[in-house]
Amino acid sequence: MISLEDLAALARPAQTKIVLLVLDGVGGLPRASDGLTELEAARTPHLDMLVPQATLGLADPIGPGITPGSGPGHLGLFGYDPLAFRIGRGVLEAVGIDLHLSDQDLAARGNFCSVDAEGRITDRRAGRIPTEVCARLCALLEKIRLPGIELTVRPVREHRFVVLFRGPGLEEGLSETDPQEVGKLPLPVRAEAPQAARAAEVANQFVAAAQKALASEHPANMVLLRGFSKYPKIPKLTDLYGVRAAVIAVYPMYRGLARLVGMESVKAGDSVADEFAALEAAFDRFDFFFMHIKKTDSYGEDGNFENKVHVIEEVDRELPRLLRLRPDVLLITGDHSTPAAFKAHSWHPVPVLLSSKWCRPDRAGRFSERECRTGGLGHIRSAELMPLAMAYAERLTKFGA
Amino acid sequence: MISLEDLAALARPAQTKIVLLVLDGVGGLPRASDGLTELEAARTPHLDMLVPQATLGLADPIGPGITPGSGPGHLGLFGYDPLAFRIGRGVLEAVGIDLHLSDQDLAARGNFCSVDAEGRITDRRAGRIPTEVCARLCALLEKIRLPGIELTVRPVREHRFVVLFRGPGLEEGLSETDPQEVGKLPLPVRAEAPQAARAAEVANQFVAAAQKALASEHPANMVLLRGFSKYPKIPKLTDLYGVRAAVIAVYPMYRGLARLVGMESVKAGDSVADEFAALEAAFDRFDFFFMHIKKTDSYGEDGNFENKVHVIEEVDRELPRLLRLRPDVLLITGDHSTPAAFKAHSWHPVPVLLSSKWCRPDRAGRFSERECRTGGLGHIRSAELMPLAMAYAERLTKFGA
Repeated sequence: MISLEDLAALARPAQTKIVLLVLDGVGGLPRASDGLTELEAARTPHLDMLVPQATLGLADPIGPGITPGSGPGHLGLFGYDPLAFRIGRGVLEAVGIDLHLSDQDLAARGNFCSVDAEGRITDRRAGRIPTEVCARLCALLEKIRLPGIELTVRPVREHRFVVLFRGPGLEEGLSETDPQEVGKLPLPVRAEAPQAARAAEVANQFVAAAQKALASEHPANMVLLRGFSKYPKIPKLTDLYGVRAAVIAVYPMYRGLARLVGMESVKAGDSVADEFAALEAAFDRFDFFFMHIKKTDSYGEDGNFENKVHVIEEVDRELPRLLRLRPDVLLITGDHSTPAAFKAHSWHPVPVLLSSKWCRPDRAGRFSERECRTGGLGHIRSAELMPLAMAYAERLTKFGA
Repeated sequence: MISLEDLAALARPAQTKIVLLVLDGVGGLPRASDGLTELEAARTPHLDMLVPQATLGLADPIGPGITPGSGPGHLGLFGYDPLAFRIGRGVLEAVGIDLHLSDQDLAARGNFCSVDAEGRITDRRAGRIPTEVCARLCALLEKIRLPGIELTVRPVREHRFVVLFRGPGLEEGLSETDPQEVGKLPLPVRAEAPQAARAAEVANQFVAAAQKALASEHPANMVLLRGFSKYPKIPKLTDLYGVRAAVIAVYPMYRGLARLVGMESVKAGDSVADEFAALEAAFDRFDFFFMHIKKTDSYGEDGNFENKVHVIEEVDRELPRLLRLRPDVLLITGDHSTPAAFKAHSWHPVPVLLSSKWCRPDRAGRFSERECRTGGLGHIRSAELMPLAMAYAERLTKFGA
């Protein structure tokens, strides 16, 4: 694959606009009754109308057989090799609750847990305390003072929280404190790289102070930390391609992932229609739009074939609003497959539709897994979609003379 | 491609079973009479029955245009990049005659040759002496005593033999003794890497002793050695994926290649039916099975289209025995193509059929080169089949959160 440096060298200014419409987990599997996948079962007249002028294909987010999490799945769509750019769990959890990270922030994912009088873990999840209790305890922990460190402690859900350590010299490379077994003592944080020594010291100070602060609490009288990570150093889309990029997403994690690559978040309401309205409102101000539809994935994970079909149909109904804006390139795909039959993210390649006036039309009849297999994009890696989108938007000059 | 380290980190335990059925050299080319390939000409009702529920594709063992030997071809199928993991000729020859190699063994491929009174080579193959003579001379050479070295010398066929030097400090990086030309003296073994100095010394001692031991023989009065190599350091399938893996193969080389990656050899008779019987007998004891059918390749090399077709049909007739065992994943493919028309291994991509309950069905009608081209696996590398098999067997967790 071409390197980001080489790609950036090819970028040229243009007045064109690109919309990347992501139906999270859109790829499916056949249902037993009639052998149709979610996309095949959905009535999608507007998508179907696009197909004869579009180029279709299948994309592997990471590689054959590899099931992506949401982080790597989206990094791929944004044009970054997910194996080269890795997002730590702490960072992902932090962006998932809309925390904005700076270069000085070290994030960790926390669990409240229960320990006995000797400090041995009796419950790694502190009986899954209610989120309200978690919030109160986080406020308590945020009062901890560590010299030279600005501390942020925020609840996620139940026993889970995020802690951000902000300060100079905090580097990655820390072991986690969760021994993954009850009856054991929490582990001290160890620096696995020499440059992480300061961060290990700070993390251990925090854990000690947290234990003191929680001493009289029950059942959540201790914390376990893991996934220590910093905001990855990723070149921004603006720097690579010269695009002003916007994200329209209901869930904070996807906005956070998009901010990571330099997108600006555009306010939108909670419904699919709200997201299309936000696109209309922002269309003049940006030239790259990442629109994220979450519920195709949620219903896939629930195993709810029918409702996943309904979300696809809902997007299709709103699609004319997007088409009336006449983007130069419209790329419709998913970050991975979440077949309702499988009830989880899966490794199955993701259908892709690219529409532009420069498409070589396919013989495909519809936007579906089976038809995409025959498409002109072939079977590619998700990270190759971004150069394709830029090319079809005439934003890349030729390589070499 | 994802690294083996990353893959191993994704492995998770499962109760599922995988069968990798390799028809050696199965890929073919059309015959003149009707334009059908070997797979297309074969009557394969059971394979055909699998197709509607399977995912098909084409695989390149190494890369477009590269014809693999049996070693790299199989390493690819086992999930190892054949360009990164190389097996020396000495080792391949040794496993080909069922020798078991330890970490201390340095293997070399030997030729008996003829030299004149001045030691100049007059025949690099000693007139292709009969295998029986070769065996007698090997027994003679095995009596050589080298301090600190355990010596194994075994016949292969005609003038060819294998020598194993076992001892501490024997490292790879030796030049060969065959000058590839008559009228020249055999070359001394040189250490091409400093750590190979001890091995070079031992090899030269052996050659000198062999010349003495063979002095009164005719025409085989000298040896030439090449392909000095050690057992490659390859992570085992058990360590990578947590599978207990078995090999069912008639030819020792394939058992040896499989042992190299941690498979256990299961006893089987010589016929295709015997191999299926061995699978039935061992099915409860392992969760990964590599079954190797040799004769598709042999008949391909002979240019015997009809008999290659018959072997494919024979496998198809036995297939129901395998299907009754209900493996969770069945992967049917070859290690390379050996078109009868070409009479040799070739670079043509190899047809692949993957059957599992999680397959997105293709439109393909049969298991053939032409139909596989339309399949959902697309056109991939053979080494990507192993992650796919593991994914379909639900033995990989997702990458990233």
